[in-house]
Amino acid sequence: MKIGIFGTGTVGRTFAEKLIGLGHEVTIGTRNVAEKLADTSKDYMGNPPFSDWHKSNNKIRLGTFSDAAAFGEILINATNGAGTLTVLDSAGAKNLAGKVLIDVSNPLDPSHGMPPTLLPHLSNTTSLGEMIQKTFPEARVVKTLNTMWCGLMVNPALIAGGDHVNFLSGNDNEAKSEVKRLLYQFGWKDECLIDLGDITSARGAEAYLPLWLRIWGVTKSGAFNIRMVQ
Amino acid sequence: MKIGIFGTGTVGRTFAEKLIGLGHEVTIGTRNVAEKLADTSKDYMGNPPFSDWHKSNNKIRLGTFSDAAAFGEILINATNGAGTLTVLDSAGAKNLAGKVLIDVSNPLDPSHGMPPTLLPHLSNTTSLGEMIQKTFPEARVVKTLNTMWCGLMVNPALIAGGDHVNFLSGNDNEAKSEVKRLLYQFGWKDECLIDLGDITSARGAEAYLPLWLRIWGVTKSGAFNIRMVQ
Repeated sequence: MKIGIFGTGTVGRTFAEKLIGLGHEVTIGTRNVAEKLADTSKDYMGNPPFSDWHKSNNKIRLGTFSDAAAFGEILINATNGAGTLTVLDSAGAKNLAGKVLIDVSNPLDPSHGMPPTLLPHLSNTTSLGEMIQKTFPEARVVKTLNTMWCGLMVNPALIAGGDHVNFLSGNDNEAKSEVKRLLYQFGWKDECLIDLGDITSARGAEAYLPLWLRIWGVTKSGAFNIRMVQ
Repeated sequence: MKIGIFGTGTVGRTFAEKLIGLGHEVTIGTRNVAEKLADTSKDYMGNPPFSDWHKSNNKIRLGTFSDAAAFGEILINATNGAGTLTVLDSAGAKNLAGKVLIDVSNPLDPSHGMPPTLLPHLSNTTSLGEMIQKTFPEARVVKTLNTMWCGLMVNPALIAGGDHVNFLSGNDNEAKSEVKRLLYQFGWKDECLIDLGDITSARGAEAYLPLWLRIWGVTKSGAFNIRMVQ
């Protein structure tokens, strides 16, 4: 399958590597291709520059946001939540129309110090997932995987035999089914996928982040998740 | 032990019954004792009037918020989060001073419809737990048990053999130890108690509520909780 990924950071790279490994074709989108390839600095998390990573992952195409959007049959938003709507605008509404858009990002606000809070205009009475769906009504937005470290998103079996949960929110049930088929390829078990309902339920999944960040502060490792018990 | 509970709703009643059963003495506080006993209407959740419940739980004293605060060696806030600071003001700062104040409430805002959102002035960059601690600096506030249905708060063994988590936040480690001793009496296992840190970490525990409410919308029963897996 052809998959377009928005975002060249750790999350975008993690999806790209996994998807290539599964036999999919991938284009990662960035604002400015030449600038991205010329950048030799580590990111603020200490990750190597994209160009270094790209040398050892050269099956993955790099293009503009618009290129990635036009290329993908399925699209993945792995950008910083604060910039997502600008990125998608630059990707172009016509390139998103009719496509499943998997949103794994969170509207984090680092401006008040660590751990980040949530951006008020994208949380509580709304959510990033909802705002994407509202701004691009022809995209088929599915919020999922945003409640965990990216290493687990594409490899749930890394901990506890994969027995932990992932939530899905979206208005389009067929889009959710398509996303589930991709999640199964990552190793997600059907009984671990919890459909929270329409896209407004992304409010719940995104609101979990402040708790996730506090637990991370205790565990000192992102390799944890939650399981539901009843 | 003498325990004062603020709030005559389901949560307050649940704590009172459990604590009496464990051999503690309990005073529940309310705004106006005569009015509360004269009220014969069901609450908005369809629960029987307090006076009916009180007839079959007559070991439990009813007093003003101030009476309950003065009575208790340990205090439990089981009021509606929106009204908590007013209630505690009426309980009296001098009656709270030096005492462990267990805060199990959430700053829910039903004004935008169901499920409730969080009150903006008590969430995200702050929390109800923090605001209680800030307003009553001599109280020893411990936020805990707010991430689940009240039936589980006092009886974790009701599901999954009690193997699910409860978070604690607070500035005073000795206060957290006192709270843990009470939690053990309820049946909580030490390995299920996660100390998130100081009272600012209540932001995380309270932020979980929007997700809890969405999961509840799916499960249709409050008898669920989360377990951590690593």
